[in-house]
Amino acid sequence: MIQTKLIPRTDEAHEPPMLIKSLLAQSLRYEPQREIVYRDLFRMNYVTFNQRVRQLANVLTEAGVKPGDTIAVLDWDSHRYLECFFGITSMGAILHTVNVRLSPAQILFTMNHAEDKVVLIHEDFLPIVNAIKDQLTTVQTYIVLSDKVYSGTPLAEIPAGFSGEYEALLQKALSEFDFPDFDENTWATTFYTTGTTGNPKGVYFSHRQLFMHTMGLLTYIIGYEAMPFKGSSDVYMPITPLFHVHAWGFPFLATMMSAKQVYPGRYEPEVLLRLLITEGVTLSHCVPTILNMLVSSPAAQKYRENLSRWKVLIGGSALTKGLAKAAIDLGITVMSGYGMSETAPVMAVGYLNEQEKQLSASEQLDLRTRAGRISPFVEMRLMDDTGNFVQHDGHSLGEIVARGPWLTQGYFNDPERGATLWQGGWLHTGDVASITPDNWVIIADRTKDVIKTGGEWVSSLDMEDVLSQVEGVAESAVIGLPDDRWGERPHALIVQKPGYTLSAEGIKAVLQAKVNRGELHKWYVPDRIVFVPEIPKTSVGKIDKKRIRSEMKDLILS
Amino acid sequence: MIQTKLIPRTDEAHEPPMLIKSLLAQSLRYEPQREIVYRDLFRMNYVTFNQRVRQLANVLTEAGVKPGDTIAVLDWDSHRYLECFFGITSMGAILHTVNVRLSPAQILFTMNHAEDKVVLIHEDFLPIVNAIKDQLTTVQTYIVLSDKVYSGTPLAEIPAGFSGEYEALLQKALSEFDFPDFDENTWATTFYTTGTTGNPKGVYFSHRQLFMHTMGLLTYIIGYEAMPFKGSSDVYMPITPLFHVHAWGFPFLATMMSAKQVYPGRYEPEVLLRLLITEGVTLSHCVPTILNMLVSSPAAQKYRENLSRWKVLIGGSALTKGLAKAAIDLGITVMSGYGMSETAPVMAVGYLNEQEKQLSASEQLDLRTRAGRISPFVEMRLMDDTGNFVQHDGHSLGEIVARGPWLTQGYFNDPERGATLWQGGWLHTGDVASITPDNWVIIADRTKDVIKTGGEWVSSLDMEDVLSQVEGVAESAVIGLPDDRWGERPHALIVQKPGYTLSAEGIKAVLQAKVNRGELHKWYVPDRIVFVPEIPKTSVGKIDKKRIRSEMKDLILS
Repeated sequence: MIQTKLIPRTDEAHEPPMLIKSLLAQSLRYEPQREIVYRDLFRMNYVTFNQRVRQLANVLTEAGVKPGDTIAVLDWDSHRYLECFFGITSMGAILHTVNVRLSPAQILFTMNHAEDKVVLIHEDFLPIVNAIKDQLTTVQTYIVLSDKVYSGTPLAEIPAGFSGEYEALLQKALSEFDFPDFDENTWATTFYTTGTTGNPKGVYFSHRQLFMHTMGLLTYIIGYEAMPFKGSSDVYMPITPLFHVHAWGFPFLATMMSAKQVYPGRYEPEVLLRLLITEGVTLSHCVPTILNMLVSSPAAQKYRENLSRWKVLIGGSALTKGLAKAAIDLGITVMSGYGMSETAPVMAVGYLNEQEKQLSASEQLDLRTRAGRISPFVEMRLMDDTGNFVQHDGHSLGEIVARGPWLTQGYFNDPERGATLWQGGWLHTGDVASITPDNWVIIADRTKDVIKTGGEWVSSLDMEDVLSQVEGVAESAVIGLPDDRWGERPHALIVQKPGYTLSAEGIKAVLQAKVNRGELHKWYVPDRIVFVPEIPKTSVGKIDKKRIRSEMKDLILS
Repeated sequence: MIQTKLIPRTDEAHEPPMLIKSLLAQSLRYEPQREIVYRDLFRMNYVTFNQRVRQLANVLTEAGVKPGDTIAVLDWDSHRYLECFFGITSMGAILHTVNVRLSPAQILFTMNHAEDKVVLIHEDFLPIVNAIKDQLTTVQTYIVLSDKVYSGTPLAEIPAGFSGEYEALLQKALSEFDFPDFDENTWATTFYTTGTTGNPKGVYFSHRQLFMHTMGLLTYIIGYEAMPFKGSSDVYMPITPLFHVHAWGFPFLATMMSAKQVYPGRYEPEVLLRLLITEGVTLSHCVPTILNMLVSSPAAQKYRENLSRWKVLIGGSALTKGLAKAAIDLGITVMSGYGMSETAPVMAVGYLNEQEKQLSASEQLDLRTRAGRISPFVEMRLMDDTGNFVQHDGHSLGEIVARGPWLTQGYFNDPERGATLWQGGWLHTGDVASITPDNWVIIADRTKDVIKTGGEWVSSLDMEDVLSQVEGVAESAVIGLPDDRWGERPHALIVQKPGYTLSAEGIKAVLQAKVNRGELHKWYVPDRIVFVPEIPKTSVGKIDKKRIRSEMKDLILS
């Protein structure tokens, strides 16, 4: 960085650090009477919320928590979790949002790796913790979270070795706590992301980063009207878990705006839909699977009127046009976003400018299903194999690399993978995309699946999309295999629909016709097309290209 | 600050500083085709604007400007000035916005004190600069700004000793310039504020401070809908000069939102009104005097329809209910704000919450004429004489002291007055106010004029307001004078309306009746009421209380 003249400071002059407590302070300034709702179990306004956040800080201080200690939370989406978002971080401790969907062995790994000192556990997850408790090396105190206390049912009993139940502990604690000032680069949150190989990786974010992420959301969710969120009338309900990248950071924004917030606990379609209706929810975010579940629910048609005020940001995986259209037909406003655990997460959210708002519904559909537009304050580039930047022309492909105010600065205690992530001073996403001149990001593939042939990058996903449109093709998988002349060349596995007898030559002829019409680049036509009865899948149902490349290479090239 | 655990950083990891160039970058992302308009002389879109900002940086580099150098600008509100806001700061230099309303001697003082190296001067101000040029000790280069070049009229000639004319220099410069990263605490802007005594004081702001000020404005102008500013449809025109505390910071917000912006040049009522109409201006800010001038213009009634979409933030001095009502009657949306040169400036802006929006127009009028609600991220307190904090109960008075992310950290090269400003770690505003429990700020007086009697603070302005309602009183001035028993006691000077013969006893009786009805605190009744033919005023027409206290003390106490 170049040398400049810094502002001089009078001895006693004060300039505050950017801390999460500043966002919390705002919640009392606009509409403090607004409510935070937990299912049909609990509701409070922001005045009470602020008191409870401080009670939590007192409970934890009493339990021996000091700044720099890590506190693990295993809970469904609740008001308690939101209290942890603000209370744990504002006292200078670190919130570890444990991914309860991991295997017990992975949860054990993450909790020991994060050095959790105190653990807050919803009673639903006691079996998990009981199974690993003996192997947890750093935990000193357990606190149980129970929903029963809100319905008058007494808690069975405090589990052995637990210091108490959350609500009971809060009730006994003082509601005043002076959240201190500290360095804005203080570690605020941590959680783990799993890859296909190796142990889960711990990402982490500072107060400054989460503050800035909130400002980024504010700029385009509200400023650019990506998901017009009116402090004065919108109601927020997350349908991406709070343990998953801070529910995309929206709870920080909603709290700063003192918007009404609804926390749905464990995700059950009928509960989600009921809360949507009864609490008047207008803004959510979720993965396509959840949207699909809600849209295809028989109740959806019945609640058209309520759904028509619902705005949903979709992320996690690609929103298909079919699903987007089904949602729009119900009156739901949908838009896509893009990000990852490493990026806090938002790196792109779609928004339509004046011209785009004039487009037809189907043209808008194309935009709404793109990954989004580059986030405010984020610098995004496309990088080729040799580390050079690729043009933002809307079709040239490159790996998305980014810089910005809210990207994890490494993986905790994993310098090697951290260095790979940040190689050359840019965060490498592992996603291949094109970017249009007006900042729309169009994801093409994962870097490990993209096929590099003759200096061009071919998206295996795009190619599978083309193949799936060929008459008689039930399913396809396209992979790259080494080629002496071109570096790599695409090859396809195809599963035929029953009753069809396709030939490789026939399919190539269809593709060649597309090439002749200029609809397909000639590089895209696979060298070999092999018919298989079944395509290898991972445990979560994704095409297992790694296995195909290693195990089926000989079959393909034979 | 307490010790916490900071986030670890991988060697190559990158986190950008908060710089003004990040706001500029946003201007190309939302609606880059929107226009920036200068009177009827010049218009361009944000793409051109970004190029011109970089051309300016090249022109200045060519002129020898280095990071840390100070560049003075003397111009009316123009697109050029906006280019300076971004170009000068983003190259790491310091923008000195010269107050062209100061006397030539004061301008000379500020330019030497700020150590200006390059000066950009509108030709209207050449006489000022010519008069002081020989005494400017640090200036190396002059550039002239001319409006003639936009209307095809050739510039008379480049004045002797000038390096060129702005537009001509820009046209010759490259439109690419790589604005570097540097410390976010880099000095970005400076300007001078005048008090009643001593030389003008130089305040200054860093990139981080101006970035955060923009986030603060975004939060409540847009988020809390204080002045609902839709990126998608609003049109901004400042009517507070750009040299005056960055036109309250709005140009930074409007640019980040790539909103259409209209710069009116020299303020002429008919030009302002014409631009309002023809360019479809919807958002402005100004002092009450300007609003009054526009509202009482004969043309106002004619343009009711256009004015009804106009939102105006009022600051600088108190907005009276009469003026606010006149504006509202024309359909204009008015709201007040509060701040000062030392605070970048915004410390309060009014916004109505859900309940307040239900109030009657006259009840809203009371809120709209208050100083505003405490700004996001700003901490504001009321302090009494002994340095203790006063309750925010809506009536107890104290001096407003503040902390926040955008307050000047001192006065340049004036450590003594800087230390006074920041005494005890709080910025002392010199304004006396009460604050309601819901964060409305109600300004009562200046600290030097408030009367401290028997442990209570009495607002001289409030008391003058009460006296002005007494039949036969033309004008009044209330001051505090030392009192052995009570510390100070209020005393009043009164000018009678022609034809009246008032007595001190008569007026006291009126006041006592108010005391009896509970409308006035007994402390407020002045000890002495003295009739005078005229009340001493300052050169700008304000009651000169300093002179009254020193020169008329004997008259009053005799």
